[in-house]
Amino acid sequence: MIIDVHNHVVSGDRLPSYQSFLISGRGFHGKGHPNITEESVAQAKFSGKSHEDLLTEVGTDMAFISPRPFTMMHAQKPEKIVHYFIEASNDTIALAVKLSPTLMRGVAGLPQCSGQSPSVALEELERCVKELGFVGCVVNPDPGEGDGQTPGMGDEYWYPLYEKMVELDVPGIIHSAGCLNPRESFHNHFITEEGIAVQSLMRSTVFDDFPNLKLIVCHGGGSVPYQIGRWRALDRFSDYEETFDQRLKKLYFDTALYNTESLELLFKIVGPDNCLFGSERPGAGSSTNPLTGRWFDDIKPLIDDIPWLSDEDRQKVYEGNARRLFTRFKD
Amino acid sequence: MIIDVHNHVVSGDRLPSYQSFLISGRGFHGKGHPNITEESVAQAKFSGKSHEDLLTEVGTDMAFISPRPFTMMHAQKPEKIVHYFIEASNDTIALAVKLSPTLMRGVAGLPQCSGQSPSVALEELERCVKELGFVGCVVNPDPGEGDGQTPGMGDEYWYPLYEKMVELDVPGIIHSAGCLNPRESFHNHFITEEGIAVQSLMRSTVFDDFPNLKLIVCHGGGSVPYQIGRWRALDRFSDYEETFDQRLKKLYFDTALYNTESLELLFKIVGPDNCLFGSERPGAGSSTNPLTGRWFDDIKPLIDDIPWLSDEDRQKVYEGNARRLFTRFKD
Repeated sequence: MIIDVHNHVVSGDRLPSYQSFLISGRGFHGKGHPNITEESVAQAKFSGKSHEDLLTEVGTDMAFISPRPFTMMHAQKPEKIVHYFIEASNDTIALAVKLSPTLMRGVAGLPQCSGQSPSVALEELERCVKELGFVGCVVNPDPGEGDGQTPGMGDEYWYPLYEKMVELDVPGIIHSAGCLNPRESFHNHFITEEGIAVQSLMRSTVFDDFPNLKLIVCHGGGSVPYQIGRWRALDRFSDYEETFDQRLKKLYFDTALYNTESLELLFKIVGPDNCLFGSERPGAGSSTNPLTGRWFDDIKPLIDDIPWLSDEDRQKVYEGNARRLFTRFKD
Repeated sequence: MIIDVHNHVVSGDRLPSYQSFLISGRGFHGKGHPNITEESVAQAKFSGKSHEDLLTEVGTDMAFISPRPFTMMHAQKPEKIVHYFIEASNDTIALAVKLSPTLMRGVAGLPQCSGQSPSVALEELERCVKELGFVGCVVNPDPGEGDGQTPGMGDEYWYPLYEKMVELDVPGIIHSAGCLNPRESFHNHFITEEGIAVQSLMRSTVFDDFPNLKLIVCHGGGSVPYQIGRWRALDRFSDYEETFDQRLKKLYFDTALYNTESLELLFKIVGPDNCLFGSERPGAGSSTNPLTGRWFDDIKPLIDDIPWLSDEDRQKVYEGNARRLFTRFKD
């Protein structure tokens, strides 16, 4: 079985149309009516294809779908429009799961708001898990969307959220949202924020304080596995008995990298026990790789072809680790 | 011959002592007297050893030395103390080169100042090249040191500096300085800023406007080679005829990575023609790797052991590419 833990909802036009209404009006009209229905979600396409088709044609058996991160608008004001939009996004996800119950599960977007405690997001997280049956959540390490003001993920600022995640036993997928700073695209900001989040966590007491916290770093961990030598060497400034590699084992990583060399590096550095299949398909990698003729995000063949991975390794990456972490997922 | 293009001066105590005087007094005392002499530089040690010994014991024949980046304090105010300190740093480098003329050459620090045009640094660059015989310069993509306010390196903000670099025919080493934002260490900020700089340059007309501009991205290019699949796939949103990989060939990369897997990835993705040996030794990698018993920054054996590199590839990485770029370097 292939479980894709890093996957985003294909919503159709009504959700962005609702977002446009919220941002333009700045909340003047109140919550309004998203008008997102089973029918509108069922008709949604990406590049002319349904989400179901895009998943099944590459052999994905189960996708954990979350809001499309770059749209989450956590830094927009007033805060109520963030809440309205994230609620509508999660409701859209719930409809998609209802339409494809054997192929999809929900991962909650959180109404994190720049300048506020993450505790403002707990009610929505609870709703998604307890009422909508979602199995995880997306944690944006930078709700300021490029303003550099939110404390690193090792800071106690995050503790109300970690406490709730542990209580509900839901893993968090570390994935930033937009980037309002013109010097950086949101795409590169994902990678930037993953590096910052990992370094902050690795120099914190978060996993002492929350030993059952489960965090997955997207895009193969941003820059971290490639820059591993640096972090190993800098252990000489560390207060920890464990090495950087040992501490890194407390984190998990998805496989959303679109070339063999980088996937190999990921598996070699963090090990298959800490990797979960994730492709974002459809998303950043949804264009044809001229070398293979397939879309870049069709990465299972790349992983299948890595000769030194064992069948057991692959089973863990494709399914086993996801089942171990996402305990709320039932077939 | 082994040329290390990413190397920093071992200054001894007088340069940091001068920095402390400047920062504490905020320029009240004027320029003052750094009191850095041939003797004080000759006696400088890193971890009990001289810079000469640290280089020769790993087989480095020539090191291009620049200021230690995290000390460059580009965001300190008033601006005059940045100018004073960078001048003193460059003078220290000139003394080190004078003491080790067969082993070292100077790479200029630039008195970039947060909130100002890079044109404020041109006089010092010219002094370093024309009077002190330096062969290159360090370009800090973020003189705001974590404030996110400086335009990306693809912006015309940078053109006065690029123009001067081309006129003087000196390569620029892209390397950020400190990081005043508590959510990120300066070490991680290096990596962050390299990713941002590359993406900004790759989506700009800089190399059309300055076809002879030579830029070297430190630390193996930050996150870029590892995340290459993402940038390849996103070519579908690009206005360029050339692919991302083709455009990336306009940049150069050092080898300051401290493990075989990452070095292999670097060479595979950007190719040996675009890589220059750089180790930072002594610097971030100067602690013992328990797997080898050598310091992490002793990376020549790692590159020697990559079986698929040819002797010609290695010659380019160790020497040929550096000679091609640093035309002002003469034996």
